[in-house]
Amino acid sequence: MSFRYGQRHAVELAAAAHVAAAIGVASHRIVDLDLGAVGGSALTADIAVPKARSSAEIGAEIPVTYVPARNTIFLAYALAVAEVLDAGEIVIGVNVLDSSGYPDCGPEFLAAMREVARLGTRAGVQGRAIAISAPLINLGKADIIREGVRLGVDYSLTHSCYDPAPSGGACATCDACLLRKRGFADAMVPDPTRYGR
Amino acid sequence: MSFRYGQRHAVELAAAAHVAAAIGVASHRIVDLDLGAVGGSALTADIAVPKARSSAEIGAEIPVTYVPARNTIFLAYALAVAEVLDAGEIVIGVNVLDSSGYPDCGPEFLAAMREVARLGTRAGVQGRAIAISAPLINLGKADIIREGVRLGVDYSLTHSCYDPAPSGGACATCDACLLRKRGFADAMVPDPTRYGR
Repeated sequence: MSFRYGQRHAVELAAAAHVAAAIGVASHRIVDLDLGAVGGSALTADIAVPKARSSAEIGAEIPVTYVPARNTIFLAYALAVAEVLDAGEIVIGVNVLDSSGYPDCGPEFLAAMREVARLGTRAGVQGRAIAISAPLINLGKADIIREGVRLGVDYSLTHSCYDPAPSGGACATCDACLLRKRGFADAMVPDPTRYGR
Repeated sequence: MSFRYGQRHAVELAAAAHVAAAIGVASHRIVDLDLGAVGGSALTADIAVPKARSSAEIGAEIPVTYVPARNTIFLAYALAVAEVLDAGEIVIGVNVLDSSGYPDCGPEFLAAMREVARLGTRAGVQGRAIAISAPLINLGKADIIREGVRLGVDYSLTHSCYDPAPSGGACATCDACLLRKRGFADAMVPDPTRYGR
């Protein structure tokens, strides 16, 4: 499940479709969310994406790329779809170690959402609460790269950049690009990312 | 804040706009949600709305008019907007006594959503958690009618029916109509609802 929410890096949706096709998922659905109307984030409004920040700066505070309540909305939608499909589990790719500034990526937040799944859905009150898993939550970016390599992920299909060029090329200097580059370097895996215009 | 989510009673959105204008709210926004694609409910899919059920039937189980995770999605969106507006409180009209079948209308669910507001938003982690209030939650429908009369609500502007006629007239026999009619009767307040075709 992917979300088109007015993000400036909407190219990630095409990347997600390519990854889904490459690994043969049964269904990949893209849901439209009207978050541009909400605003308040560098990812959805006319606010500059920070560039070339140091590690200390990246971890220091909630970045302007935080999208208010975004993962809450994502998980709420996923709960709805999971209920209708009678699915037992939602998997989300949040990660705390490298980008600790986002409040909706941490274990406390996920624990609260699990309570919502248990208490606020038909499946939950009937004793079949939908699980919410975050297998990457405590991994560093280098560990994530290594695990992906082990599983056969083609990283040339994936996208991380918050502020890509019109061509889809990654900017190389936003927080997401810096963390991704360092992950490949630390894992000593060649970086297949296409940077530039 | 109102939501256009593919509900068969979308006429409630016009009613909400009339009520908002009548009481002079500063802003009434209608958000589009793609819940028709989720399906699974008599309110959004081609599933019949139950009619003329007894009180025992209405309270007995989660009705087919339950929309999977709907109030979770509503509150997630409201959290996003509240963060951007720097609003301190979200008020939602859920009610348990007369329609106890909905899992996302109860105090346990709301408590879990308050934890999400506290742990999963910038406002929350910075110590300004957005409150979620449900002033009608423990009132019976007759009490709600009386409180509205006391506050000067024009009930001729309001809408409850799940399955209105194309003209907007209420069906008089769905759960929402039955509970509303009984509320007016029990409160001994004249019912201004427009029923029929």
